[in-house]
Amino acid sequence: MFQKVAFIGLGLIGGSIARAIREKYPRVRLAARTASTQTLAYACDQGLIQETPGNLALLAGDADLIILATPIELIPEYLRQVYPCAGPGAVIIDTGSTKARIVEGAKKYADKFIGCHPMFGSEKSGVQNADSRLLRGARFVFTPYKNTPEPKLRAVQQFFKALGARPCRTGAREHDAAVAAISHVPYFNAAALLRLADDDARRALAATGFQSCTRVAESDPDWGLDIARTNKKEVLSGLQTLQKELRCLEKLITRAQFPALRCYLELSRQTRRKIYPQ
Amino acid sequence: MFQKVAFIGLGLIGGSIARAIREKYPRVRLAARTASTQTLAYACDQGLIQETPGNLALLAGDADLIILATPIELIPEYLRQVYPCAGPGAVIIDTGSTKARIVEGAKKYADKFIGCHPMFGSEKSGVQNADSRLLRGARFVFTPYKNTPEPKLRAVQQFFKALGARPCRTGAREHDAAVAAISHVPYFNAAALLRLADDDARRALAATGFQSCTRVAESDPDWGLDIARTNKKEVLSGLQTLQKELRCLEKLITRAQFPALRCYLELSRQTRRKIYPQ
Repeated sequence: MFQKVAFIGLGLIGGSIARAIREKYPRVRLAARTASTQTLAYACDQGLIQETPGNLALLAGDADLIILATPIELIPEYLRQVYPCAGPGAVIIDTGSTKARIVEGAKKYADKFIGCHPMFGSEKSGVQNADSRLLRGARFVFTPYKNTPEPKLRAVQQFFKALGARPCRTGAREHDAAVAAISHVPYFNAAALLRLADDDARRALAATGFQSCTRVAESDPDWGLDIARTNKKEVLSGLQTLQKELRCLEKLITRAQFPALRCYLELSRQTRRKIYPQ
Repeated sequence: MFQKVAFIGLGLIGGSIARAIREKYPRVRLAARTASTQTLAYACDQGLIQETPGNLALLAGDADLIILATPIELIPEYLRQVYPCAGPGAVIIDTGSTKARIVEGAKKYADKFIGCHPMFGSEKSGVQNADSRLLRGARFVFTPYKNTPEPKLRAVQQFFKALGARPCRTGAREHDAAVAAISHVPYFNAAALLRLADDDARRALAATGFQSCTRVAESDPDWGLDIARTNKKEVLSGLQTLQKELRCLEKLITRAQFPALRCYLELSRQTRRKIYPQ
């Protein structure tokens, strides 16, 4: 078990993890460094964080688990800085929602660093909206190296499982292709769908269906830029596949090929029920 | 106020309206004819329907409000049959989710018939899933003719307002363009999105975001065929607009035009907040 967990960055993701640790393991020491002093003040006021050391060496030196929960662009640099400060037994994970870039650039840190994507979120952001319930049932995807120490990987998986998450392992590239398909492309697609609601008469008729379809477009646009930057190839490939599918539907409707259209719609419904059994 | 309401067809939409009337106005007589005797037996068992006359003349002859709640393809023929049976003071409405075809083909019935689209639904179908709460806050779009008797239109609007719905008026073509944009295209789009989740590794990572984005794909495929048939022009135009928007996003990402991409994503978020204030 970890005795001290250190956070670099503390937004919705880091904050929710901190809250879950605080609730499940009240005796674990939680330390953090954040870009904003307001964030840190809030986290201390809330009793979420006990230690706010002045530098990375003090933050990471005696931590068993170090969590890089900054915006994704900053993770490689923080990893470079924190790695030499961390003890040989420490585990460093990140929370970036794309993995290949970070993980492939950090092979030399494999004795301590394991890529991680905690797959939860909310339309809201910031530590103020942190909620330990977001971890319940959430996938925590780990993307270990071949030479990742197995005991470290097991320890960190067990730790998050005890917090209610569902850890799993996969390759960084497989992860990125999967999240492009089931998270990143659907986000850009929701933003595109909203362009169809371009006048008041249309907006007046929008109901709960359109609300569901576009919910993910409430995400922070900066998150959108992050994924466009860091998962570009897979996002573009997914956007192209989606357009190909839409063209296919367009053809079936234009040509009035209703039996084939029915098959398409039924197959999609079956796929959804495989993922989300009723 | 209406003393007797007659339903032709009684699925989720008709059934939910019947339930809402039953709860709000226990003394209103409710009559119905349905294709399936099981449906009718269920509705009678549930106390939803009191009268099950053997022909349309008995059903409609003394009804103040006649609701055509069959699949959309059957509405014109039932309207033709029921119109001469209905008294001069009666109002006939339909519940079809596309309007131009039905309404433009029924101008000669304008003294009694008013096109209507009750904008509620559920992934579930059938009278067994009827729920009066579905009417709460739901748009009921009326598409009157120039020569629609104003008192009839007002009476029917007030009636549904009292049941918790939000009635409004628009042209049949304007309605069809609007629902293509905010309901029909999002449905086909959700079916297309599910094709991206084409293997188990991807499905294993799908979470609540993908669940929201694809919820409407649970709708009955036959509803999809209905809208493809009856709102073909607007659906095709919407699918093309959506592909154009996706191509635009693809270009912005390919060329790394991040400030423009940020504007796009932010504008979409703003549009959503106009529709669904937080």
